[in-house]
Amino acid sequence: MKKNVLIVGAGGVGHVVAHKCAMNNDVLGDICIASRTQQKCDAIIESVLRKNHLKDTTKKLYSRSVDAMDIPSVIQLIKDTKSEIVINVGQAYVNMTVLEACIETGVVYMDTAIHEDPDKVCENPPWYANYEWKRKERCAEKGVTAILGIGFDPGVVNAWCALAQKDYFDTIDTIDILDVNAGSHGKFFATNFDPEINFREFRKVWTWIDRKWVLQKVHAIKVDYDFPVVGNCPVYLTGHDELHSLSKNIDANSIRFWMGFGEHYLNVFSVLTNIGMTSEKPLKIAEGVEIAPLKVLKALLPDPASLAPNYIGKTCIGNFIKGTKDNKPREIFIYNICDHAECYHEVESQAISYTAGVPPVAAAILIARGDWDVKHMVNVEELDPKPFIELLDNMGLPTEVIEKPATFAAPVIESL
Amino acid sequence: MKKNVLIVGAGGVGHVVAHKCAMNNDVLGDICIASRTQQKCDAIIESVLRKNHLKDTTKKLYSRSVDAMDIPSVIQLIKDTKSEIVINVGQAYVNMTVLEACIETGVVYMDTAIHEDPDKVCENPPWYANYEWKRKERCAEKGVTAILGIGFDPGVVNAWCALAQKDYFDTIDTIDILDVNAGSHGKFFATNFDPEINFREFRKVWTWIDRKWVLQKVHAIKVDYDFPVVGNCPVYLTGHDELHSLSKNIDANSIRFWMGFGEHYLNVFSVLTNIGMTSEKPLKIAEGVEIAPLKVLKALLPDPASLAPNYIGKTCIGNFIKGTKDNKPREIFIYNICDHAECYHEVESQAISYTAGVPPVAAAILIARGDWDVKHMVNVEELDPKPFIELLDNMGLPTEVIEKPATFAAPVIESL
Repeated sequence: MKKNVLIVGAGGVGHVVAHKCAMNNDVLGDICIASRTQQKCDAIIESVLRKNHLKDTTKKLYSRSVDAMDIPSVIQLIKDTKSEIVINVGQAYVNMTVLEACIETGVVYMDTAIHEDPDKVCENPPWYANYEWKRKERCAEKGVTAILGIGFDPGVVNAWCALAQKDYFDTIDTIDILDVNAGSHGKFFATNFDPEINFREFRKVWTWIDRKWVLQKVHAIKVDYDFPVVGNCPVYLTGHDELHSLSKNIDANSIRFWMGFGEHYLNVFSVLTNIGMTSEKPLKIAEGVEIAPLKVLKALLPDPASLAPNYIGKTCIGNFIKGTKDNKPREIFIYNICDHAECYHEVESQAISYTAGVPPVAAAILIARGDWDVKHMVNVEELDPKPFIELLDNMGLPTEVIEKPATFAAPVIESL
Repeated sequence: MKKNVLIVGAGGVGHVVAHKCAMNNDVLGDICIASRTQQKCDAIIESVLRKNHLKDTTKKLYSRSVDAMDIPSVIQLIKDTKSEIVINVGQAYVNMTVLEACIETGVVYMDTAIHEDPDKVCENPPWYANYEWKRKERCAEKGVTAILGIGFDPGVVNAWCALAQKDYFDTIDTIDILDVNAGSHGKFFATNFDPEINFREFRKVWTWIDRKWVLQKVHAIKVDYDFPVVGNCPVYLTGHDELHSLSKNIDANSIRFWMGFGEHYLNVFSVLTNIGMTSEKPLKIAEGVEIAPLKVLKALLPDPASLAPNYIGKTCIGNFIKGTKDNKPREIFIYNICDHAECYHEVESQAISYTAGVPPVAAAILIARGDWDVKHMVNVEELDPKPFIELLDNMGLPTEVIEKPATFAAPVIESL
């Protein structure tokens, strides 16, 4: 039985993690939210208290300031807060320093997105091998449970792959992970999470086809799919974290990721990219100042957290899986629908942050209970999916399964 | 007979001014190009020498570094270089300091664009009254010839208005100044002159309708016009310098300015503006750096001078004028066609810089000859247009006149 949770990061996802931890603090114990900017943590705590979400009021919910890039500071924070579970939802640049601190102190580590080096974009696959998996042995030696990518995608979609393999299929041919936000925030343009991380995703498309890595161009391959509830939406072949572990851990010929974009989004994105605004490379401005255009763009765009109050509509994230069972072809669509306004009503957040923030708390509960306290480093598909999916059913992210769904018809995808 | 020219500014227009001064240095004497960055001046001198454009090789062509915002420095430079004519083609922010230095030293002042305060955008009309005209009396007292806005538009288009009033019309109803660049630079997006000044133009539209200032929205009123040579192009009602003096000096009911924009340009402009990239207001970046997004955009966009080598196509700038002569209705289109590639062949520049840079040199020649050395401050329409237009005919910017041109059919324009 592990307890006391340290949340690193006070962005949109951290907000949801804090709410859900508070709602389960009878199991999870004291909760500390730490970030470079302590005010952001305090604003989250205010939201939790405003919503009366502290289930056990004898447990603490408090904030700290921390430089998550500095290992000794994180170690000290873990010790000071007596945390046994760290949920890292800070910027993707801090994953390795926070993980190191967890290994040093022997506590549980979780994150929701892959580690990134600020100076490198879209490195060679599989991405987890570049940073995370290099620490696999040390986690095992120290008996440290580290769960990588336990948000929604990566995260829940990985668990669905494991479930499909266990219960639905004997052989899997293709897994198409489809992520569409059919909601509307009413702004001219905004990203639903950190624009810096968001735009870095859209440089190259690494995808897993016929058991090989294939490189494609961004927004080049489009498929229209008739989603449950949200209806017909265009999705584009996109590179994404989960392919880099699923390709190793799931026995399927092809595993692809597709993201929904509207015409307006693509037009704005195309203009910004062509102008050079999405570049992370420092640019010399005439006056002698050097700054990465992407940082300027981030400062100009709405704070993703600010979108929540007026967000309407729903997200649909699901896996279209094709294979055989008992020697017969089978197709299923396993998915979740999440409503922006309902998320706001519950935890003052939008659905993108909600879907990413609830799963690590479910995982923390499973670890506190002992179910998932595996004492080594894993990606989500390596864990038993059932208790996780069951827990999520009751935490706001129910899983639905359609047998014989509308067919997802991808074209033949060749390498550039 | 005045001589020795000081060119302040080493951008695209300064480049053309230097070439054309050199080609007429038998009349104009020594030529100094001064800029904050002396290398930019030296690059222009190299271009002039490469093209063998120094007509009288006994005359000097040389460079100096100067801070044009500092009046004493400019005064010293004028004295050191023994310049009697200053052609100011620096950023629009330096007009008043350079003019002050000319008044102090009693030399001729010229510019090609209206003065701007970096912190103010689209001030109240008439713009010349905010800065330039406040120095009118002092110019007269000192006998200083100051010619404001002697580029193409403002500049040549103002001379055409004066010519129309003198020779073509007894009464003028409307003057529509149409400026279209039907050329192509082959880049995703670029401005043809300093993006900072360029985008500052597109905030409000002040226009002169029925002898009153009328405020309209940017890119809101569009007219298709069938131009000579370049054919049908859409133009949009736009605010522009020349309206602010023509409204005072030319007896016409309405004087409007229209600029040509393609769909792609407007889309990119709209995205950049909606995102906030064209704002001159300093923005706080997360890392503590403060910078105006417009300065970042300027650093990202191609240097307008770099467009020249691959620019193809033509510009057409003309005045569609409607009125009466001998009690009969008359319509004329008085215009110039300028070819990007021909400009590059002649002076290694594109047509936008060329059309702005040739006129002040023609004016300098007229001043050196005495024709235009009026010893006070004027806008171009206050001068005798004929010698100027004749000179331009032989300097690469011939004027053409069409009687009964295609009708320019503007809608009724009301104030917001």
